[in-house]
Amino acid sequence: MNNNASTIYKNAIVFDGLIISNWSGDLFREMQQSGLTAANCTCSVWENFTDTVNNLVAWNGWLREFSDHIVKAETVSDIRAAKSAGKTAIILGMQNTSAFEDKIGYVEILKTLGVGIAQMTYNTQNWVGSGCYEGRDSGLSDFGREVVAEMNRVGMLCDLSHVGPKTSRDVIDCSTMPVAYSHCLPSGAEAASAQQV
Amino acid sequence: MNNNASTIYKNAIVFDGLIISNWSGDLFREMQQSGLTAANCTCSVWENFTDTVNNLVAWNGWLREFSDHIVKAETVSDIRAAKSAGKTAIILGMQNTSAFEDKIGYVEILKTLGVGIAQMTYNTQNWVGSGCYEGRDSGLSDFGREVVAEMNRVGMLCDLSHVGPKTSRDVIDCSTMPVAYSHCLPSGAEAASAQQV
Repeated sequence: MNNNASTIYKNAIVFDGLIISNWSGDLFREMQQSGLTAANCTCSVWENFTDTVNNLVAWNGWLREFSDHIVKAETVSDIRAAKSAGKTAIILGMQNTSAFEDKIGYVEILKTLGVGIAQMTYNTQNWVGSGCYEGRDSGLSDFGREVVAEMNRVGMLCDLSHVGPKTSRDVIDCSTMPVAYSHCLPSGAEAASAQQV
Repeated sequence: MNNNASTIYKNAIVFDGLIISNWSGDLFREMQQSGLTAANCTCSVWENFTDTVNNLVAWNGWLREFSDHIVKAETVSDIRAAKSAGKTAIILGMQNTSAFEDKIGYVEILKTLGVGIAQMTYNTQNWVGSGCYEGRDSGLSDFGREVVAEMNRVGMLCDLSHVGPKTSRDVIDCSTMPVAYSHCLPSGAEAASAQQV
């Protein structure tokens, strides 16, 4: 990078929309040293509630052990504070709503434990809606509509990557808060159409 | 009460060391109207981790629904704020360590979810130590010593009610923070001796 680009990068808030990895101290050090301000780090994919909590126990340990490199972020000001401290802010995210099981109250529990982002589905259908690789997508289920409202209430971002096109549309329509495609498959409608052809 | 006593009561921090009940809106209203500043309210007795979390989901609902009467307290200043607001502060407490199962990480998880107090045992032996009605009490287990250290670290009060006499003595010796007999059986040693005779 030339000097200008380097200065811009150093001053910028650099956010990685999704990282899933075999987490380690070396990786956290590299994230910090690369100048990454913050990242959505996957803490659950197919796990149920208890197994997701067990992953969060592991994250609590890493956040303590590698506190020279990373810091948990639950608010925008946490991200800015991490930037000032020269550390990488970790936003814990789930690539599924499997951890909510069929219990609406687990949304608030997981938010309290630090989960800031949840993808509604992961490729296939679940309690909430359909994934981007399902042949059929009837949109958000009744429970899914409750989940979006509850995520809005507690302040958890609805992630639409890997989500079916009609389910995505429904989340966009139902949510009173901004939603996101954190990393992939924003054109799920085309993908699904192509598949059906 | 005469006027003086009434004034003293109104100005006092009145703390109920333990309430276990069939929780209801009527009860929360009565707690508030009686002038109770704060109470250690039991959210787990024999439950494992997941069932305890399910109880916390219920508490989250009550705290929202009955927010005119009660408010969750996680710090001393929360208790003082409740006094000022004329509401009863709820400190969530467990009458056992069964919710930790055999996983030290669950101590921090449950603290994050608002559990401020945990009784080490409930009458009988568990992973941590012996209860006050056990015939034999070999004191805190190795895991129990880890639990006390972890409770100290995260700021969860060790409650010695219903705990065996040697286990109680060990907790008092191991803990670097004050411990408490929240409601009963402070003379467990005598009770246990009497039983053996």
